[in-house]
Amino acid sequence: MRKLVHAELLQRRLTAEEARRQDDRHPLSFILHNVRSLYNVGSIFRSADALALRELLLCGYTPRPPRSEIAKTALGADEIVPWSGWDTALEAVRREKQAGRTVLALELTDAGRPHDELRAADFPLTLVLGNELTGIDDELLAECDGAVEIPMFGVKHSFNVSVAAGIAGAAAVACWRRLNNNH
Amino acid sequence: MRKLVHAELLQRRLTAEEARRQDDRHPLSFILHNVRSLYNVGSIFRSADALALRELLLCGYTPRPPRSEIAKTALGADEIVPWSGWDTALEAVRREKQAGRTVLALELTDAGRPHDELRAADFPLTLVLGNELTGIDDELLAECDGAVEIPMFGVKHSFNVSVAAGIAGAAAVACWRRLNNNH
Repeated sequence: MRKLVHAELLQRRLTAEEARRQDDRHPLSFILHNVRSLYNVGSIFRSADALALRELLLCGYTPRPPRSEIAKTALGADEIVPWSGWDTALEAVRREKQAGRTVLALELTDAGRPHDELRAADFPLTLVLGNELTGIDDELLAECDGAVEIPMFGVKHSFNVSVAAGIAGAAAVACWRRLNNNH
Repeated sequence: MRKLVHAELLQRRLTAEEARRQDDRHPLSFILHNVRSLYNVGSIFRSADALALRELLLCGYTPRPPRSEIAKTALGADEIVPWSGWDTALEAVRREKQAGRTVLALELTDAGRPHDELRAADFPLTLVLGNELTGIDDELLAECDGAVEIPMFGVKHSFNVSVAAGIAGAAAVACWRRLNNNH
């Protein structure tokens, strides 16, 4: 067993031009609702590139590119992943629903489904990620079609928001690819 | 649909005393090989609590508790999750193998298996996470029983190490619980 060398990694990667073709990306977007930290936003851009997500919808006071701190943790993915800015997450949720997408909150609720058991009818899918401290507020939650959660077994019962985004995003992409026999 | 209130969340959580009983934790550990960033180590402690991992083996120059930066991003999980310190990751890999655990590198190799298709024979399992820039070096890789990788579809082809740890850890815990009809 050996590590792949740079030339082999390049063969697996998209060019920036290929990556920008939104129709070829996975039918999964993230709404970021008042995510505070520039580093979390940068890390989510990096994951959104790796997972080829359709779009990041940056809402409320979530910081937006160009910002040097975002670019640093995104490793430049902020120039590749399609994104849009929204005054409020409510507007972004309504736009996604009008466009025919299922909108699910990533939040601990009384109606949570496992994040890794999505069905064909859930796609195209948009996941809502909340603020680092307060999560997703009730008004926004009421506008979502449902909620998913990552099973937790510990004392603190929380993940960093960029880690939670990665876990839920990777599992959703895997579900979609399995459902489309493209695993 | 409504968010769970604090009292409901408490019912789902372990107490710190329960959480420290290592035999009740999942048969999954992480070896951290020269992870540089205090914030990444703290974030991995937080995820290791949420996933009830067995142990974190902090190797080489990976920073160790107590450090205020680790405690901050760990939200105190550094006082709950069992951990040990090792001069080199090679020693830690050998200890794990002697104890009968499968040791898999989380790395892009020519022999990578999908991170979310683990088998019963893979457990108890220890995943090796490498340095933020250089990953896992060849000598250490040669000592591992194999490698798993997270499918990537983008231009940059990488995740932040704490995000990768969360994705691989959550998927491995889900595999183990499915294999044990405990999903």
